[in-house]
Amino acid sequence: MDEAIFEIPLWWELLAVGVGALMGALFASRFKDHHLDLLGVSIIGVSTGLGGGVLRDLVLSVPVATFQSNWYLIVAVSASLLGMLLERLLKRLNTLFTVVDALNLGLFAALGATKGIAFGVPAVPAALLGVITAVGGSILRDVLMVTPVELLKVGPLYATAAIIGTTTLVTTTTIGVPFLPAAITCVVVTFVARMVGFTFGLRLPEQRRL
Amino acid sequence: MDEAIFEIPLWWELLAVGVGALMGALFASRFKDHHLDLLGVSIIGVSTGLGGGVLRDLVLSVPVATFQSNWYLIVAVSASLLGMLLERLLKRLNTLFTVVDALNLGLFAALGATKGIAFGVPAVPAALLGVITAVGGSILRDVLMVTPVELLKVGPLYATAAIIGTTTLVTTTTIGVPFLPAAITCVVVTFVARMVGFTFGLRLPEQRRL
Amino acid sequence: MDEAIFEIPLWWELLAVGVGALMGALFASRFKDHHLDLLGVSIIGVSTGLGGGVLRDLVLSVPVATFQSNWYLIVAVSASLLGMLLERLLKRLNTLFTVVDALNLGLFAALGATKGIAFGVPAVPAALLGVITAVGGSILRDVLMVTPVELLKVGPLYATAAIIGTTTLVTTTTIGVPFLPAAITCVVVTFVARMVGFTFGLRLPEQRRL
Repeated sequence: MDEAIFEIPLWWELLAVGVGALMGALFASRFKDHHLDLLGVSIIGVSTGLGGGVLRDLVLSVPVATFQSNWYLIVAVSASLLGMLLERLLKRLNTLFTVVDALNLGLFAALGATKGIAFGVPAVPAALLGVITAVGGSILRDVLMVTPVELLKVGPLYATAAIIGTTTLVTTTTIGVPFLPAAITCVVVTFVARMVGFTFGLRLPEQRRL
Repeated sequence: MDEAIFEIPLWWELLAVGVGALMGALFASRFKDHHLDLLGVSIIGVSTGLGGGVLRDLVLSVPVATFQSNWYLIVAVSASLLGMLLERLLKRLNTLFTVVDALNLGLFAALGATKGIAFGVPAVPAALLGVITAVGGSILRDVLMVTPVELLKVGPLYATAAIIGTTTLVTTTTIGVPFLPAAITCVVVTFVARMVGFTFGLRLPEQRRL
Repeated sequence: MDEAIFEIPLWWELLAVGVGALMGALFASRFKDHHLDLLGVSIIGVSTGLGGGVLRDLVLSVPVATFQSNWYLIVAVSASLLGMLLERLLKRLNTLFTVVDALNLGLFAALGATKGIAFGVPAVPAALLGVITAVGGSILRDVLMVTPVELLKVGPLYATAAIIGTTTLVTTTTIGVPFLPAAITCVVVTFVARMVGFTFGLRLPEQRRL
């Protein structure tokens, strides 16, 4: 395994986890009728922020990275409680969040796909692994909230943006591009695809039969 | 570990995965009110087709097999989209599907139980592992669809058929029967139990108290 | 890894698994409209009794302990069926169960946290791992029943008691207290916190914003 590719600074990862947890807590605040307590909000926030990375490491059968350092959990719990307390304020920053979340989506996708490739996963499942890393937190969030999984439904491109990004990544690395430029390209492509999808309301067609 | 037992041809496994994914997509098509898009249908199909094997490998703490080759995912996604498009046609082939699905159930059960035994799992949990491999996909499907888990409810023998099959397998291997005949017996017993249960509407009793 | 800490007698673990499975089956019996069959009740009971330990071992990326011995599953299935049959009788023993369950909560929390520390997990995630071990079964139960996850909601301290217990454990071991007294302290603290919370109806505040 080429350790070099994981030299993404820890603070970037923690920022991503924190943003994920904060958005998970904001999501939970929509369900006032669920009567979540402080711990419930934290569980949803932590699951949203850390879920994708946990799923990725489970699939790779390596010890889960978020359990190897104290910081992930501290950041995720703090961000969840902050999200809950500042709900009113944060909801006004909606546009900022969409942008940061789109960046996060790309970063997690790149982290998942490159870690997969580094552990010998072939191109197609490596792209899937990137997507799972990017959207796994939101799936876990919905399953725990027992609410329909948002990702499955018709809506502005989200997982699709991650698929486009990780497909770009595995294609470019397969033809010999080094990891770092390929990962950066993945982040940019995912970000642009998500923002274009969001801005113009692009969506995949609903399921249909011939 | 005796590698010999895993020399089941890849095309058989892929056929099983494809059938599972196709049936998962057909299942998803029942929920028009969920407004799944093309990706949503693919996610449900892929989860149904690959879920059992993934759960098995997670429990055994080995790298998930479906992430070690490109083919699993390609087959699962193609089968899902095919299932969605040809829904009308495929629904007429209901009987054929019940038969193929019963075969799949037995094959997955045998694959799971023998892999467990090969990794040193004792008889009782090895039988469970076979059952998890056989029915894990359908459980994952229901959890993601946030619909009551079909398997828990009163209905024609399904998981029970897999339990009968894997119990036969671990019993016969314990008394010294080699893996291959034991695995084939498992497939046959599961298939027969499922078809008999389906044809005559056999079912386990509903939960009750004394 | 210091093997010594795992010399908790197997019968204690099996008792804990049995109590968990029995309470899972009792929980399932509340949902008469789900039409669970005997197997469905067993699946819920087994998931409740074994779920926490399975999640713990998945996160640690070690072979799942409950699949390494025949006894876990035999005990869990028997306890589930017993719980279903004796529902009427057992419901009268409510207070006894609350006490036994509070003990279980502490024991599982201690088992999870110490196993985590033994595998090199730092203090904060080790405390979380103990909590996951203690409450994972009930989360899995609710997800499979497609019912709102009880743990997330306002109610008498439950997971919070486990958090207090495992925090005590990682704090004491960090300052040099040996595993055994630290684990026993964790069981006692969790038990007392749970019983005090239950008796006086203490609860965390509901989610709120500033």
